[in-house]
Amino acid sequence: MSSFVLYTLSRALRSAARLGTAGKADVASVPWRSRAVGSRHLSYGRTVNGPRVVWVAGGAAAVAGVAAAAFSHFQRAEMATRTGVVKEDEKGDVAERCKAFMSPPVTSVEQLEKKKGEMSSRMEMLIMQTQAEFCRALEEVDGGKFRVDRWSREEGGGGISCVMQDGKVFEKAGVNVSVVSGYLTEEAAKQMRSRGKVLKGKDGKLPFIAMGVSSVIHPKNPHIPTVHFNYRYFEIEEEDGSKQWWFGGGTDLTPVYIDKEDAALFHSVLREACDKHHPKYYPDFKKWCDRYFYVRHRGETRGIGGIFFDDLDSPNQEEVFSFVKSCAKTVVPCYLPIVRKHLNDSFTQKEKDWQQVRRGRYVEFNLVYDRGVKFGLATPGSRIESILMSLPLTARWEYMHEPRKGTKEAEMLDVLRNPKEWI
Amino acid sequence: MSSFVLYTLSRALRSAARLGTAGKADVASVPWRSRAVGSRHLSYGRTVNGPRVVWVAGGAAAVAGVAAAAFSHFQRAEMATRTGVVKEDEKGDVAERCKAFMSPPVTSVEQLEKKKGEMSSRMEMLIMQTQAEFCRALEEVDGGKFRVDRWSREEGGGGISCVMQDGKVFEKAGVNVSVVSGYLTEEAAKQMRSRGKVLKGKDGKLPFIAMGVSSVIHPKNPHIPTVHFNYRYFEIEEEDGSKQWWFGGGTDLTPVYIDKEDAALFHSVLREACDKHHPKYYPDFKKWCDRYFYVRHRGETRGIGGIFFDDLDSPNQEEVFSFVKSCAKTVVPCYLPIVRKHLNDSFTQKEKDWQQVRRGRYVEFNLVYDRGVKFGLATPGSRIESILMSLPLTARWEYMHEPRKGTKEAEMLDVLRNPKEWI
Repeated sequence: MSSFVLYTLSRALRSAARLGTAGKADVASVPWRSRAVGSRHLSYGRTVNGPRVVWVAGGAAAVAGVAAAAFSHFQRAEMATRTGVVKEDEKGDVAERCKAFMSPPVTSVEQLEKKKGEMSSRMEMLIMQTQAEFCRALEEVDGGKFRVDRWSREEGGGGISCVMQDGKVFEKAGVNVSVVSGYLTEEAAKQMRSRGKVLKGKDGKLPFIAMGVSSVIHPKNPHIPTVHFNYRYFEIEEEDGSKQWWFGGGTDLTPVYIDKEDAALFHSVLREACDKHHPKYYPDFKKWCDRYFYVRHRGETRGIGGIFFDDLDSPNQEEVFSFVKSCAKTVVPCYLPIVRKHLNDSFTQKEKDWQQVRRGRYVEFNLVYDRGVKFGLATPGSRIESILMSLPLTARWEYMHEPRKGTKEAEMLDVLRNPKEWI
Repeated sequence: MSSFVLYTLSRALRSAARLGTAGKADVASVPWRSRAVGSRHLSYGRTVNGPRVVWVAGGAAAVAGVAAAAFSHFQRAEMATRTGVVKEDEKGDVAERCKAFMSPPVTSVEQLEKKKGEMSSRMEMLIMQTQAEFCRALEEVDGGKFRVDRWSREEGGGGISCVMQDGKVFEKAGVNVSVVSGYLTEEAAKQMRSRGKVLKGKDGKLPFIAMGVSSVIHPKNPHIPTVHFNYRYFEIEEEDGSKQWWFGGGTDLTPVYIDKEDAALFHSVLREACDKHHPKYYPDFKKWCDRYFYVRHRGETRGIGGIFFDDLDSPNQEEVFSFVKSCAKTVVPCYLPIVRKHLNDSFTQKEKDWQQVRRGRYVEFNLVYDRGVKFGLATPGSRIESILMSLPLTARWEYMHEPRKGTKEAEMLDVLRNPKEWI
């Protein structure tokens, strides 16, 4: 199972607990609020019954056993995007769309076709499509081919890992999809109780589904930055059939040398995607990203950031999905132009060494701080190779490495120690 | 501050807590017991008043404000080694002995001379001497010189880091001494209370001293194994002047390819040192080592083990110190013959690559599991470069790397997956 999905699962426990104490706020009466960046304690005003309402508006979620929606819910439904379930870019026969993927999806095409209005199906199609678009774009620029591994998980679901190693342009490129489902364990339930919340499951069981697409690309040329993105969705079903759900994700860039033009392009593409949905998304999620990708023991950010968000569940499911879709659509245009620009840049051994030192810091972040990796490694039965495919092919640790003042390396470090606004 | 010393400090909190609930067992009435390997819950029968009694026997610890020793303590004293404070190998003027060190010791020569009967002084002399002997032996075989960095810690104490990078034989060799002292913070004290123990300090302050020598040597040639050792001592003083103290340590080997002769030599030298002190030390500490240096998410030990122990405080301080001294004396004879044997072994690129993959696993262990590193990275004001000097100069992560059956690489993996008895 891939790390971020595992982590999403662990988040579920905390979020469920938070909900329990925070009460069931209704989105209609709570406008979208900018929450403190990175804070877990404020809430956007999550609603447990969200999917039902979206279903009223767009038929997006077919949830069985639901009592009639209250007026406030209907009002909220009015706020939701007023389109049908199948958006313009989701049109077409499921089987036909699947043909473009790197592999058949984790869920069977029949199931996806049958439940194509449900958010879990729509999100699975989106992450498969994102994987394919990104992989094809990288293959085109590299000339190499991705190795595609399908894996399954005993408890339910599985994933598709696409890895290109030692290519012409890319040292290691990994693009992973995972879709896992199952029931929360008794231990997980206990953990919730200790946080003050007892989630009621059918016969004590709480079905969940967690899915996402995740990628880390380490190029060979030190003038081409490393990129990482991850977009994920989580659903948990209670006894009465109501669902808790949320989205998370982000894209961030880790250059070896600063190129202000690249940084501006990267952030602009992300901001444009954010601004279509909420003016506070970009500034808030940019800050969150700088705070999350922080190598504390070095006092450095991992790279020059991008956006990062988690627990996103308002104003409604349709709108959040639409935002996530906008973000997913940026992965090619925010990175590939930068790759192409530096494709033929020459570099020295000294520049390559500095890249390797920075790769070492990347490893430090991923193994010491990344919540997905930590949770994944601690979970028996995880697919370790998918979790650790984010590690570079090679890395270097030099004792007391500190670039001389005035060098390009020192300029890079300065940016990592003092995160900047790029646009 | 170096990682193992930091970790020793964190151990202090737990041990103090354990003591509080376990009661103050007296060593005289509790013969040395083999405790469950790796378990924290059994005790050797630690005594809070140990140092006083050793002082009666050998004048080892000058502890102020101590009430008269009970008969049982005197009896225990009788069991202690019946030699004077200054053992044969500790003879000679302190200033004279210090001349052989890599750097002046952390504590001033005057202080060490003045308190030369105290365990903290004797241990500091031992770790400085071990550092020097090991560094000189490595310099001799490599032809290179160690870079020596002295560093100090605002709260008290400091260290001496010796690092040789990119030598002829060694890719990265680090030998670190640290001697840190200070007071436990209020937070630390709180943590103890939550474990059921309130340690009484003078005016609420609990003075401690933690010291050790730690080393990791990564050679260039894949036929020369990586070695790691670490010997440490901890003391904490309560309001009435009584001290809690213990020793920890170990030496372990991480080959890239199995050489049974090397493994047997390495373990034999360690067993010989252990057997002089207790017949159960080697078998118990060998198991503890295999269990501690375990990369859980890979289902592999880090290497072929050696010995590992912690919390050692019985039968008495003099005897434990004597055991630690025996161990410290092995670091040259258990490793240098192996280095010399393989010095001119030829190797292929494939063998070098496999070494780099194994180095990646070494990084995984150190960043994900090593308690000293984890604690060190999480502690503000730590000397990060000394903590992370254990990381190799270079490492590699290949996606889905699995050696073919019947190869030397598969043979190595098999040993890591199924720890063996080597002697």
